[in-house]
Amino acid sequence: MHFTSEQRLDDGVLEREFTLGEIPGILWTPATASATATASAPAPLILLGHPPLGLRKMYPRLAARAQHCAAEGFATATIELPGSGDRPRLPGAEQALADMRRALQAGEPVADETIDALVLPLVDRAVPEWRTALDALLALPGIGGPVGYSGGVISIGTRLAVVEPRISAAVLFAGSFIPRVMYEEARQVTIPLHVLLQWDDEGNDRQAALDLFDAFGSEEKTLHANMGGHTGVPRFAGDAAGQFLTRHLR
Amino acid sequence: MHFTSEQRLDDGVLEREFTLGEIPGILWTPATASATATASAPAPLILLGHPPLGLRKMYPRLAARAQHCAAEGFATATIELPGSGDRPRLPGAEQALADMRRALQAGEPVADETIDALVLPLVDRAVPEWRTALDALLALPGIGGPVGYSGGVISIGTRLAVVEPRISAAVLFAGSFIPRVMYEEARQVTIPLHVLLQWDDEGNDRQAALDLFDAFGSEEKTLHANMGGHTGVPRFAGDAAGQFLTRHLR
Repeated sequence: MHFTSEQRLDDGVLEREFTLGEIPGILWTPATASATATASAPAPLILLGHPPLGLRKMYPRLAARAQHCAAEGFATATIELPGSGDRPRLPGAEQALADMRRALQAGEPVADETIDALVLPLVDRAVPEWRTALDALLALPGIGGPVGYSGGVISIGTRLAVVEPRISAAVLFAGSFIPRVMYEEARQVTIPLHVLLQWDDEGNDRQAALDLFDAFGSEEKTLHANMGGHTGVPRFAGDAAGQFLTRHLR
Repeated sequence: MHFTSEQRLDDGVLEREFTLGEIPGILWTPATASATATASAPAPLILLGHPPLGLRKMYPRLAARAQHCAAEGFATATIELPGSGDRPRLPGAEQALADMRRALQAGEPVADETIDALVLPLVDRAVPEWRTALDALLALPGIGGPVGYSGGVISIGTRLAVVEPRISAAVLFAGSFIPRVMYEEARQVTIPLHVLLQWDDEGNDRQAALDLFDAFGSEEKTLHANMGGHTGVPRFAGDAAGQFLTRHLR
């Protein structure tokens, strides 16, 4: 992990861009943590998931989430997804995306094969990268466990919750296509989950989201469904997700 | 409204039993409100709904909710439901209850007619009584608006939200049978709603609850689904419902 730039945001949060091999990423640490990191307890870490639209495009929302988390004492980090931003496109992605758009424009359901082709290569590549990032992040001074995961592609969050034992709690956003195999993986999740669903998200299959919530094996799982469309998660719903993470990670 | 007894609870909350005609009820006011009622702003009021099991049986849970609300500065009140406690049974209730039990024991769905016979007479009688209670409560010194409704039989809360303009926000518990006519009434609800659903509530029809949530006409409506069975609403879910009421009533 190489830090390539650093700046202080208005509220004192330290923002550092890094590369992990060829993967760019960003780490945010609370204002107080950097000054007292070695003296005080390490900050718990939240991995900030995001849709595959590129870190540059997602930056404003990610930075806002990071600052919100920093106010609660959390360090946060994110990495570019495979196939996004300046990273090479995933094989088959263009075709799957075209198939999806064609189905949506025709008002037809997106075929399971298309969903698999769209999501599974992304999950298969992203999950090991997030785990490698976690290795590097937890080796930094001032950053420790417990670790949470929040947001982004729900299939990535689901698989991470299954395979990465260092993640203690996850906020999942049910707003993207769900490959069939993920319902089976969901049964293996046991960590506390807080699932956000935008009830009238036109581009999202509500029943698929409810089925996935039902499938999660966790003893503590909560579904928060709200109005406001795909990107209209109400502020109070974001606050509630933050309270969930605070309850489990602090 | 005649007060028949009063006592101070451990935390200073003033608990007063009353009768409203032949209907018994209980009013709780925050410790500080009674001392400063006339001098300071009146306390907002939350009507505490409950299942038709009788106030005496429900008292421990109602008092705990009242104390929780009082800590946030709310007055709370509840009345005995028609047909419950020492009040005369509703005509047809015994038969409807027997029909429901027979269906459940046979593992069959409860017929729409049975649900109607079980719930609608209760709603038809209870709603005007709660409105009369509201008249009397809001006439008391130290108690004012805005008014919230929380819990109990979801069809009573739904109809109250439609017909009673003084109710500004409601927490509804989706844990009881829903007559078909309520889906139409739900479309007329416009106040902010916070709906609690116990996901694995064996005695409850989950799909009916999701359909009712979908039907509500409110621009702000939130569904919180949790694990833990019918009576196992997690503490954090109760806290979140309290935050919703605080957000809308203060």
